[in-house]
Amino acid sequence: MDDLHLLTASEAARLIREGRLTSRELVEACLAQIDAREPAVQAWHYLDRDHALAQAEAADAAHKAGKPHGALHGVPVGIKDVFDTRDMPTENGCALHAGRTPRYDAAAVALLREAGAVILGKTVTAELAYYTPGKTRNPYDPARTPGGSSSGSAAAVAAGMVPLALGTQTNGSTIRSASFCGVYGYKPTHGLISRRNCLRLSGTLDHVGLFARSLEDVAIAGEALMRFDDGDEDMRPSAPAPLRRVLAEEPPVEPKLAFVKTPVWDKAEPVMKDALAELVEALGSKVEPVELPDVFAEAWPAQKTIMEADIAHNLRREFERGREKLSPAMQQCIERGRAITAKDYLAAQALARDLEAEIAEILFAYDAILTPAAPGPAPAGEATGNPLFSTLWTLTGVPAVSLPIMADQNGLPMGVQLVSCRGDDARLLRNAHWLVKILS
Amino acid sequence: MDDLHLLTASEAARLIREGRLTSRELVEACLAQIDAREPAVQAWHYLDRDHALAQAEAADAAHKAGKPHGALHGVPVGIKDVFDTRDMPTENGCALHAGRTPRYDAAAVALLREAGAVILGKTVTAELAYYTPGKTRNPYDPARTPGGSSSGSAAAVAAGMVPLALGTQTNGSTIRSASFCGVYGYKPTHGLISRRNCLRLSGTLDHVGLFARSLEDVAIAGEALMRFDDGDEDMRPSAPAPLRRVLAEEPPVEPKLAFVKTPVWDKAEPVMKDALAELVEALGSKVEPVELPDVFAEAWPAQKTIMEADIAHNLRREFERGREKLSPAMQQCIERGRAITAKDYLAAQALARDLEAEIAEILFAYDAILTPAAPGPAPAGEATGNPLFSTLWTLTGVPAVSLPIMADQNGLPMGVQLVSCRGDDARLLRNAHWLVKILS
Repeated sequence: MDDLHLLTASEAARLIREGRLTSRELVEACLAQIDAREPAVQAWHYLDRDHALAQAEAADAAHKAGKPHGALHGVPVGIKDVFDTRDMPTENGCALHAGRTPRYDAAAVALLREAGAVILGKTVTAELAYYTPGKTRNPYDPARTPGGSSSGSAAAVAAGMVPLALGTQTNGSTIRSASFCGVYGYKPTHGLISRRNCLRLSGTLDHVGLFARSLEDVAIAGEALMRFDDGDEDMRPSAPAPLRRVLAEEPPVEPKLAFVKTPVWDKAEPVMKDALAELVEALGSKVEPVELPDVFAEAWPAQKTIMEADIAHNLRREFERGREKLSPAMQQCIERGRAITAKDYLAAQALARDLEAEIAEILFAYDAILTPAAPGPAPAGEATGNPLFSTLWTLTGVPAVSLPIMADQNGLPMGVQLVSCRGDDARLLRNAHWLVKILS
Repeated sequence: MDDLHLLTASEAARLIREGRLTSRELVEACLAQIDAREPAVQAWHYLDRDHALAQAEAADAAHKAGKPHGALHGVPVGIKDVFDTRDMPTENGCALHAGRTPRYDAAAVALLREAGAVILGKTVTAELAYYTPGKTRNPYDPARTPGGSSSGSAAAVAAGMVPLALGTQTNGSTIRSASFCGVYGYKPTHGLISRRNCLRLSGTLDHVGLFARSLEDVAIAGEALMRFDDGDEDMRPSAPAPLRRVLAEEPPVEPKLAFVKTPVWDKAEPVMKDALAELVEALGSKVEPVELPDVFAEAWPAQKTIMEADIAHNLRREFERGREKLSPAMQQCIERGRAITAKDYLAAQALARDLEAEIAEILFAYDAILTPAAPGPAPAGEATGNPLFSTLWTLTGVPAVSLPIMADQNGLPMGVQLVSCRGDDARLLRNAHWLVKILS
């Protein structure tokens, strides 16, 4: 096994469970790949090799002692540096948070540990998960962005440094980064994964996201993470989503997709438009074009209103005590946010709920929405690229997945986004699986 | 039985269950009392005697047919005219809503019907449950206010027109109206009773409230109303609160009360201060003075910020389309609300959560907080009186009950308010019961 670092999380977990691979071997392979690629990619903000290996050895010892395995036993995972970790610094990509060492794990990190994962290290985030990029480069082309703000997590998975990584999405951080880096990106239904002890920008918009190199990995990690937590006010108790079981099933009837261009279609690059047109043609009767009602155009200003007002509130201490240590983009965001009226804020929140209901109505007739994951391939010289093909789905809290199944003429990846209605995550992943299979 | 109209809901329900009273007899007695007192009190906005009697006859027929009884079978209930009723107009005390005939019952009304109640009629509300009073007078003195905005419900119960009535509270509408009218008023923990199809002023602040002439009635109606409803975004599924069972129990140890003057103590009238001092002295070691930390002073401006911003949002259609039909007070409220920034709004929401946690901390050491229900007896010539002794408990969503156990030198009632922490409703009612007993 020369390419241990390219194993998916599910393959690696199976081999470890069967005693054919140790966590230490796997982690060493990932660290070797990091040694090889990190100088160009710069995905990691914090990585302590000894601590990673010590976790791997503990996993191996537990295996030898016959202790029960979690679904990710011994599997290394990268964590965007906005999730608190009790054993590593968490600096949120912000100079003001330098040296911050939280006492508690974020809920998502604790659940990954409970599933047996090795927390390999912390990946680079844009400043405070917003706009100003960190050091990470696109693994396909160092002149291009890996996307953001979950830049390091997307790049690390794409570069084979780790099979799985945690990100977040408040606008398009998970979906477009996955698209730019050619990996699977998954933003679950809002409120299915706890955000406790994670950097808070906006309760309405913040989502935990996932990067992986297979849909099975997305499902395994999603299941491990979807546990009710009273500490996240947007969560509701619910039976666990059977992501893995449903993913493994055939759709009972052939899915029918709605091809939705969205009101920002003219921002898509010709190469994306062409690739999607080709895809839609190949799908034939399995897909139909659906036009969104005009009111959907209001989603983009509404998302901006909520995001900026919430950021101004949630980062008020940073702004009041150290604004000169924030990037100009962040300062301007907070200044805009402070000027927003409650009237506009509440209207935007109400619009989000209305649009979510409209999406559910559209999805009475279709199994999923097919739409771009980004305007085109990863750009150069544009900060972290444009999130606007995610904005609507983030605002409405519906689940979305980016599938790495297209590329431009230079081989740069482009994602197809599938979207479903709230709570329909398991079927979304199954339909994504179906789509990938019929196109391969 | 000469005074059928003075039966409590629980007494009446028992007699009906035992076949010793018909719902028709009871409703007729209530209607006769309304005939006698309504000219002076003016509690009712809508009352169709035939429709009330038809409901009573249906309840009697069900009884005769041996059908199962709900806890309020055949008992008439008054409904503040902000709860939608599918069989009566609902006009929200607002000229713009004149002639409004909803298609569906409010969740609270539907649950009362399910418990067997006769929906007697709709009681007078201040304009849009806010400030500008309707026609209702205080049953103790027609020159004085019954309180508000739940004016009609409080007055109807006090005047013996109906044993039980629904109100709401967004600032102090239930607690101070109960205090002014000498009845029990109960504002449950926020999120325990659904507000679906009820006039919405503020999701954060709106509560369904109850008026009754006994704590047992409060418990019976509270239990009937506390049913999880997905249609109220602030509700969480939970096991039913055992209000009646716990109310009937003796406290396992003698309760210890915290006497909290609150930062608005200097707004209490001397007669209220004296009555409370006397009460505290009579309670001896059962009560201790507790001073709230300084931060609590911020509760009043925070409640105003949230209320006005939310009202400006939720009544935007009324304001935009018919502002000249709104009272000057309401127009000014909405104008102020439209100018509030999201920054201040979100800070006020965060403060509310912080203060709720502080109250929970204080209540580690005490069984309940003892505090005034209003500044003094019902005033004359002051709209609906001052809600400020309820503001803090409404903002923080904690349960509160007003006990009609004090009076001024002229016999005008004054309420004592007991408050507990979120979710502690059953024990709050039990401790209230204990307090009433030891003082009687």
